[in-house]
Amino acid sequence: MSVTTPRGFRAAGVAAGLKASGRPDVALVVNDGPDHVAAGVFTTNRVVAAPVVWSRTAVGDGVARAVVLNSGGANACTGPDGFADTHRTAEHVGDVLGVSGGDVLVCSTGLIGERLDMPALLGGIDAAAAALAGDGGPAAATAIMTTDTVPKEVALERGDGAWSVGGMAKGAGMLAPGLATMLCVLTTDAVVPAADADAALSAATAVTFDRVDSDGCMSTNDTVVLLASGASGVVVDAAELTEALTAACAALARALVADAEGASHDIAVTVRGATSEGAAVAVARAVTRSNLFKAAVFGNDPNWGRVLSAVGTVPVEVAPFDADAVDVAINGVTVCRAGGVGEDRSLVDLAAAREVHVEIDLHAGPATATVWTNDLTHDYVHENSAYST
Amino acid sequence: MSVTTPRGFRAAGVAAGLKASGRPDVALVVNDGPDHVAAGVFTTNRVVAAPVVWSRTAVGDGVARAVVLNSGGANACTGPDGFADTHRTAEHVGDVLGVSGGDVLVCSTGLIGERLDMPALLGGIDAAAAALAGDGGPAAATAIMTTDTVPKEVALERGDGAWSVGGMAKGAGMLAPGLATMLCVLTTDAVVPAADADAALSAATAVTFDRVDSDGCMSTNDTVVLLASGASGVVVDAAELTEALTAACAALARALVADAEGASHDIAVTVRGATSEGAAVAVARAVTRSNLFKAAVFGNDPNWGRVLSAVGTVPVEVAPFDADAVDVAINGVTVCRAGGVGEDRSLVDLAAAREVHVEIDLHAGPATATVWTNDLTHDYVHENSAYST
Repeated sequence: MSVTTPRGFRAAGVAAGLKASGRPDVALVVNDGPDHVAAGVFTTNRVVAAPVVWSRTAVGDGVARAVVLNSGGANACTGPDGFADTHRTAEHVGDVLGVSGGDVLVCSTGLIGERLDMPALLGGIDAAAAALAGDGGPAAATAIMTTDTVPKEVALERGDGAWSVGGMAKGAGMLAPGLATMLCVLTTDAVVPAADADAALSAATAVTFDRVDSDGCMSTNDTVVLLASGASGVVVDAAELTEALTAACAALARALVADAEGASHDIAVTVRGATSEGAAVAVARAVTRSNLFKAAVFGNDPNWGRVLSAVGTVPVEVAPFDADAVDVAINGVTVCRAGGVGEDRSLVDLAAAREVHVEIDLHAGPATATVWTNDLTHDYVHENSAYST
Repeated sequence: MSVTTPRGFRAAGVAAGLKASGRPDVALVVNDGPDHVAAGVFTTNRVVAAPVVWSRTAVGDGVARAVVLNSGGANACTGPDGFADTHRTAEHVGDVLGVSGGDVLVCSTGLIGERLDMPALLGGIDAAAAALAGDGGPAAATAIMTTDTVPKEVALERGDGAWSVGGMAKGAGMLAPGLATMLCVLTTDAVVPAADADAALSAATAVTFDRVDSDGCMSTNDTVVLLASGASGVVVDAAELTEALTAACAALARALVADAEGASHDIAVTVRGATSEGAAVAVARAVTRSNLFKAAVFGNDPNWGRVLSAVGTVPVEVAPFDADAVDVAINGVTVCRAGGVGEDRSLVDLAAAREVHVEIDLHAGPATATVWTNDLTHDYVHENSAYST
């Protein structure tokens, strides 16, 4: 299960020397067609890395032949020289593969504010091109890891195996809405027009990656790319593609949360009874951003007071509800009922499992949404005070 | 230097048994007049504790005779019974002092979602009333502490000693805009109309307490109260009062930051060159809310990439600026210039002092603002995972 599961794709991952550890750091995913449809979703941060500027433009025509990804350096805040490095990277991949550099997307992840070691990167591209293989997906998924402890991959079949979607992602910190410090490549062998690919990708990421808010910190490099080869010959409509991409993105997003830096709990905050989906998301996000709540979960403390005090910070024009009507359940125990004390909090055992489910009922409308986050732990502080990104 | 420094005030602090530790937990501040002018500023959280609901109404007529404060319980999310407890508290203070209960303000701080031990609290009020003294300010300041390690007090003279402002505050976590889990009582012996007192208090808190954002978590109980006795006989205008209150609030706000839970650094984020003060505050707040940046400061890492990636999350309609023009200086070293690498980051020594000054120049306009925060430390996580509030 990887980006090379769908027909029409080859991939590779190699160690080019960008990482001091010597671990794999350059990945290449190539779409051998017959179609070369592509779509992309990028960080909404106004401070964007050079590869984001490049790839956003390159994918604008709905066509891409390949994606090259490197860990060991974000190439962010590196000015015009950094952009020239990205341009040169794309052109080099184009030369090696015999395609236009303008059809090569580039993704980078690592420390902000440092130039990439271009001789090492270009050498890595040559090695990756030589290693391209129809089972190269797992090697590519490994080469994009930074503080990730495991590679994240997905593949799922649709139409009784007639077509499929594959994917890989990295990201373990700076996970926040508008995507995370995450890079993700999705592939499909379905036949799909570029407009449908674009719409389906946006719809899928909006309810998956955009609802992972591990630490509230939005990266400069976030990129999700979809490549469609058409190699299955199966024509799918936008709804079918959206469904499959959403399932693939949900699996990868869940894997990102499970591997978040230093986390000991994965927390799903579900808001029900909101007047709109946007209101539900806003309330859920206020809770997933509360350091006090996240620290309480680390301490296995079902502290509903911290949930409610976070809920109350959402402006009424964003989410209309009556604070005295709110119920909060933690792992199925309604510890807060109608804004006050509910069932005995000692009935909640947070130490028993990594997953924590917080359900907030606003009793104000029909809409619901879930945002995932992690607890705030000693290890998060340790990793992010000792490791520069 | 305390709330009893201005003429016309008595105060006391006693141990009533609300805190399991047996430490002082009930404070009383009484305005002996001749004026009984009062103003208040309260949390903007939609989930508000019973004492906030009470005091907001009670201070509405610009008159108050006394403030009673308890630690050891927030009386938040306690429903109609909790509100009845607050009402009874105010009436009891009124009976003991021979004033109307409607002229008694109530503040509570501690765990959310639990009823107060009313017999203990009412007994504490009797003891506090018996202990009221013209030098009782320090005892009151001690009785309102929760996780605070030191009492916070201020006093300053104006008009060559003709009139003065005194104050006390508590708060060590849940420090965020729209005030913090903080209670603050300010006193003055100036003669001032209620409308001026209200306007001056709002103006003073807007640029002091509202710009402390220790952990981004807004409390349900935040209250800042001003009592004016007129005992000096000195009539001051709104501008004079605003200046003095702002200085007093700034000193107390700085003391809150210095005593924030588990912090090892106090961080001032100053944004210059913004198109408006609101834009400057929005950009500064984005940085003070970044866990990644705050963890980096704990690690004494002058990580300007994390500053810039936080700056970039502010929507352009909130703060117009060109990301490629932004400079960032940390403790005087311009580590980022025009959105890229500036001076050598190794020139910044964050380990040398508790105070860290981050200066961000947007080069977009004339406005500036400073927001204070703390670093994100192991001790913050420890205190907030082990201690229920």
